[in-house]
Amino acid sequence: MSEFLKVKTAEEVLSILDAIEPLPPVPVSLEFACGRRLAEDIIAAEPAPHFARATMDGYAVRARDTFGASDSLPAFLERSGEVVIGEAAEIAVEPGKTVEIPTGGMIPLGADAVVMVEYTSKIDTTTIEVVRPAAPGENVLKIGDDIAPGEVLFRKGAVLRPQDIGVLAALGIVEVRVFGIARVALISTGDEIVPVETHPLPPGKVRDINSFSLSAQIEAVGARIGMRRKVSDRLEDLVAACREALENHDVIVLSGGSSVGARDYTARTLAGLPESEMLVHGVAIRPGKPTIFGRAGRALFWGLPGQPVSALIACRAFVLPSLRKLHGATEAESRHKRSIQAILNHQLPSVHGRTDYAPVSLTQVSQDRTEASPIFGKSGAISILARADGYVVIPEHVEGLDQGAEVAVFLF
Amino acid sequence: MSEFLKVKTAEEVLSILDAIEPLPPVPVSLEFACGRRLAEDIIAAEPAPHFARATMDGYAVRARDTFGASDSLPAFLERSGEVVIGEAAEIAVEPGKTVEIPTGGMIPLGADAVVMVEYTSKIDTTTIEVVRPAAPGENVLKIGDDIAPGEVLFRKGAVLRPQDIGVLAALGIVEVRVFGIARVALISTGDEIVPVETHPLPPGKVRDINSFSLSAQIEAVGARIGMRRKVSDRLEDLVAACREALENHDVIVLSGGSSVGARDYTARTLAGLPESEMLVHGVAIRPGKPTIFGRAGRALFWGLPGQPVSALIACRAFVLPSLRKLHGATEAESRHKRSIQAILNHQLPSVHGRTDYAPVSLTQVSQDRTEASPIFGKSGAISILARADGYVVIPEHVEGLDQGAEVAVFLF
Repeated sequence: MSEFLKVKTAEEVLSILDAIEPLPPVPVSLEFACGRRLAEDIIAAEPAPHFARATMDGYAVRARDTFGASDSLPAFLERSGEVVIGEAAEIAVEPGKTVEIPTGGMIPLGADAVVMVEYTSKIDTTTIEVVRPAAPGENVLKIGDDIAPGEVLFRKGAVLRPQDIGVLAALGIVEVRVFGIARVALISTGDEIVPVETHPLPPGKVRDINSFSLSAQIEAVGARIGMRRKVSDRLEDLVAACREALENHDVIVLSGGSSVGARDYTARTLAGLPESEMLVHGVAIRPGKPTIFGRAGRALFWGLPGQPVSALIACRAFVLPSLRKLHGATEAESRHKRSIQAILNHQLPSVHGRTDYAPVSLTQVSQDRTEASPIFGKSGAISILARADGYVVIPEHVEGLDQGAEVAVFLF
Repeated sequence: MSEFLKVKTAEEVLSILDAIEPLPPVPVSLEFACGRRLAEDIIAAEPAPHFARATMDGYAVRARDTFGASDSLPAFLERSGEVVIGEAAEIAVEPGKTVEIPTGGMIPLGADAVVMVEYTSKIDTTTIEVVRPAAPGENVLKIGDDIAPGEVLFRKGAVLRPQDIGVLAALGIVEVRVFGIARVALISTGDEIVPVETHPLPPGKVRDINSFSLSAQIEAVGARIGMRRKVSDRLEDLVAACREALENHDVIVLSGGSSVGARDYTARTLAGLPESEMLVHGVAIRPGKPTIFGRAGRALFWGLPGQPVSALIACRAFVLPSLRKLHGATEAESRHKRSIQAILNHQLPSVHGRTDYAPVSLTQVSQDRTEASPIFGKSGAISILARADGYVVIPEHVEGLDQGAEVAVFLF
């Protein structure tokens, strides 16, 4: 057990998480593909457009019939018909003739340009006056101009955005392979924990905060909570619940009971699971030090502190990156958090050798100055989080930050 | 009809949207409240913690019994019992005595501080040596220290984050009132539109891109697509579909057919709806000019261009802000889009009197320099969007942007 007791740094833990492989790819229909990460390159199988198309309302012409046309010396063309939107163009454009065409209409055979309607007049029922020349290809989107067959549209690993869904729809791609979504089992332990709806709260008890705040965080990165259970502080019950969770979950998140001491059941629970391996037992961070990470077979196992603020910070710092890795994110992407720059308006003490996550609130004091105010509160006070807009990370080799320092605030 | 033909500026349209009232509040259970916007202030009805609690493992003491204690002159206290986590403390701490207590344990009567276990030793089965004095209140979270009854925890209008859900859970608040979610009917029109799964695509036809790209955008702001239908280019069919949608939707988004011209059915469709009012007919933006906005009774009505790039930009510029207003956002929040600063690496031409939305791709060229490259493409090319990371807005009073200009890129 002794090597387990060696606390790891936050960076060491993140390096361990880098080895997590993505979940196996699954097919997903286009309707549900937005926000998912591609597990394959997407290659165009057909051109777009698949017919030459007008990009303006006007007249389809042979460009050379309009060369030199101007207000003082217009070209006169014979209107031989019109193209109907959504239908194949059936009348070819012969020399000296033209066909009326709407935006999106199919360019008829013979034509190689469209003159905008603004540069034309109807002289009589069949004669069209053209006062501007059209260059070959003008106002025409040719076959494959937009997307050529064989073109790689999206690379494996890309997260699909709404407009990407539109591009896939354009090509008739109605299903794509994406990385799977993690199914997470959330287990709260601790004899002091009672259901959240308990009123009034008996002395000594606390409500099951973590099952709500952790599941909201986990769902916010796109993972799914498949099991949510309160289990008593008995080792055999914890092991039984985790074994059940292993049947159809990719990740177990157990909160409570992970501090080193008499009630340290989390490490023993992990040890009681098949093919289990402890990889992290304690992290040099505050809050969140008694965080445990390991594997049970292919499943990831997290033991988080029971104290809600510690559990939430540890979840954000480590559990969410591990979920992003399962979802196919790269190392850098898995650690990515949205941050903004701010000026610290109060000194932030810290201890060398430990990474501190200090909650702060933000105030925009002028257009180009945002100030971060540290939120000091007693250990265990959950209201700290309600008042915080984000947190500042004070790295392990830094002994506190001075008032006036420019800091990155990671937004909650 | 004449005043309808007056094209409005982008700013004028946003000002019109500012008048949109939020949807009526609905109750939502805590499990589903994350990301929703509160329609009420949340006031604490009980204190947290509701019992005085130890924030460290150690010994509950009368602080004065430890005053002056040091390594060389320890205090000796009699251990009279222990507090069990999750249970009411039953043994009071009498002068000269102490009770062992775990983190989170209930402080016994008589005690006013906790000495950390690190500063104690067990001399024999009942004698505890204390080598540091504890100040009154030390390592104790008193009743209401975290949250006092009557305290306003969250204001109406706040968007609930995962940690806020935790705070609500702590107080046993299992249901909150939030602003409703918009139910959106998405109607595509255009005789050239065919279902996305059509293979091969007949000449002249295009797949129904908008119903996928617009619904992905709309769902990304939390609204719900209740109806998704392709309707032919016949006025009576469009009016019938919209009347049906009005029965149980808050917003109709009709794409296609909104340009001024022979096929301008969108304006006439709106006119055919009960209690309808046209508020915007055309916006001085590119792309997206033929955008229509109005009301039909309490419902919002959007007519977007059929061209997918135009529809997507108009949706992002105006439809999403209108949905955010329905969801209870303030004016500023409704317009909020995530942007980053970048240096334009190519000139971007524009026309005075029109707001341009120019797609750009981003390249991080060094740690503090991100470059934005304009993506030029023929009108109607949807692949532009796949290559774009975001867009630059060129305001109506500006005639283009120079190479080297610092620009805000609104991320897709």
